[in-house]
Amino acid sequence: MSEAVETSYGTLSVIESGEFAGWRFWEGDPFETRSGPFFYRREDDGTCVSAFRAEPRHMNGGGFMHGGCLLTFADFALFAIATDALNGDHAVTLNLSGDFLGAVQSGALVEARGEVTRGGGKTIFVRGLVTGDGAPALSFTGIIRRLSRR
Amino acid sequence: MSEAVETSYGTLSVIESGEFAGWRFWEGDPFETRSGPFFYRREDDGTCVSAFRAEPRHMNGGGFMHGGCLLTFADFALFAIATDALNGDHAVTLNLSGDFLGAVQSGALVEARGEVTRGGGKTIFVRGLVTGDGAPALSFTGIIRRLSRR
Amino acid sequence: MSEAVETSYGTLSVIESGEFAGWRFWEGDPFETRSGPFFYRREDDGTCVSAFRAEPRHMNGGGFMHGGCLLTFADFALFAIATDALNGDHAVTLNLSGDFLGAVQSGALVEARGEVTRGGGKTIFVRGLVTGDGAPALSFTGIIRRLSRR
Amino acid sequence: MSEAVETSYGTLSVIESGEFAGWRFWEGDPFETRSGPFFYRREDDGTCVSAFRAEPRHMNGGGFMHGGCLLTFADFALFAIATDALNGDHAVTLNLSGDFLGAVQSGALVEARGEVTRGGGKTIFVRGLVTGDGAPALSFTGIIRRLSRR
Repeated sequence: MSEAVETSYGTLSVIESGEFAGWRFWEGDPFETRSGPFFYRREDDGTCVSAFRAEPRHMNGGGFMHGGCLLTFADFALFAIATDALNGDHAVTLNLSGDFLGAVQSGALVEARGEVTRGGGKTIFVRGLVTGDGAPALSFTGIIRRLSRR
Repeated sequence: MSEAVETSYGTLSVIESGEFAGWRFWEGDPFETRSGPFFYRREDDGTCVSAFRAEPRHMNGGGFMHGGCLLTFADFALFAIATDALNGDHAVTLNLSGDFLGAVQSGALVEARGEVTRGGGKTIFVRGLVTGDGAPALSFTGIIRRLSRR
Repeated sequence: MSEAVETSYGTLSVIESGEFAGWRFWEGDPFETRSGPFFYRREDDGTCVSAFRAEPRHMNGGGFMHGGCLLTFADFALFAIATDALNGDHAVTLNLSGDFLGAVQSGALVEARGEVTRGGGKTIFVRGLVTGDGAPALSFTGIIRRLSRR
Repeated sequence: MSEAVETSYGTLSVIESGEFAGWRFWEGDPFETRSGPFFYRREDDGTCVSAFRAEPRHMNGGGFMHGGCLLTFADFALFAIATDALNGDHAVTLNLSGDFLGAVQSGALVEARGEVTRGGGKTIFVRGLVTGDGAPALSFTGIIRRLSRR
């Protein structure tokens, strides 16, 4: 799992240095790279956790993480959580819904964990939770639609 | 309405040149400025329309606008749509839900229009539609919570 | 359009008397019949409006319409709103989301109107508004999935 | 906790016989009683589980549980899950969103479990899962708003 994987949606690469050394990220996704980049890795329990470090550029005018940043990260996390259900297939997001639970400040470690509530078919349902330094920030659900088998 | 308005959430300014000359935007919101900036103005019918021009930096790895970009713009549009209901009060987003209707490509004029389905109280409900060159891209609903009277 | 239409999901019938004489409803749907029945008809502008009359049996313990009743009616309305997009095909609901805007009291005329924000394909996106005596009660969005062509 | 508790929203009673003997339910909520009644009890781990037994009257025209029935049960479960956060306060539902994961057939034991993702304040966020004989049926999130302290 350590080599870069090229797909039509960009290249799934492994970052080699810094806080998230060894984590995976998508190269070639301009908005995501610019917003993040966001990273994910498989934990020992088999689940995929997503993470990034909050910086001033992620904040809104009030000094807290912008809702759009949390939702962009959640959209990334949807696909990380669904890694096994997707098994490499492409997919698009049909719905993403977020409840904003608490503020995230610059410097926080932002993580997303979740589960596939229904996979297996073409429509994959996910729910997850984004935290900032462990405190609940965003509860989200998403529906993604498998486009094609590889 | 042409002068800049300073608030604790940044400065509501008017852009002076370019495609959106005369439209309003928030200065001092790092994530929004970096994602957009996004603009809004009041139309002759009294409603507030939001807009920006899609660029390559808004796209995902597939060459279409990233869902997170659409949702960040929708979060901006929530507050533009609720301009009159808010009447200058601060507010936070409790929920933002989006249905992804269609792809937006680089170069498209992206607009959001909507309505307050219930205002007046502390909890304000909004629904709206984002379009790309007039074609439906994102149907969204949002709940925002007024924090304080000015 | 005046005759009953039998489908594997029940019979689409026309009620012959009472306040909603001439409106359509589904016979053979136990939960819906028991909750409603709910009715719909095509208006002169081509849209399909859904309606029923609020009775004490639709209320919660506080004397207002139960949220579950509003959502059950919204689920009915999803399919009425999507009548033309479905063109007789069967479909299932993937997602239904509701924002509760205001209370409905017994005796009120409850109506639902809405629009298909994206149809044509297998996944159909709808949004709508339920009102009680004309006042906003529930803003809803739904995603339905076409199961098969007739 | 075994006596009936009267509130302005009805009476929280304990059913004395049948499959759910010892579980709590709301008397005096016409729509809920008619749809269910639905029951909840506190488990040994401190969480509140909701349940009822699926009957033919809960089904739609296709022979599966009606989406409105699942959502009505989820609306009940929101308040059961939030029992401790509410601590007896009244509350109203602001938003209820459901993803339909799988069909439930007549005869199934229908249960709902979940968690408060953020409580403590006036706005309480909940997420949960409804199952039928243990299989996922509905993933839901809800936002409820505390009306008053007792």
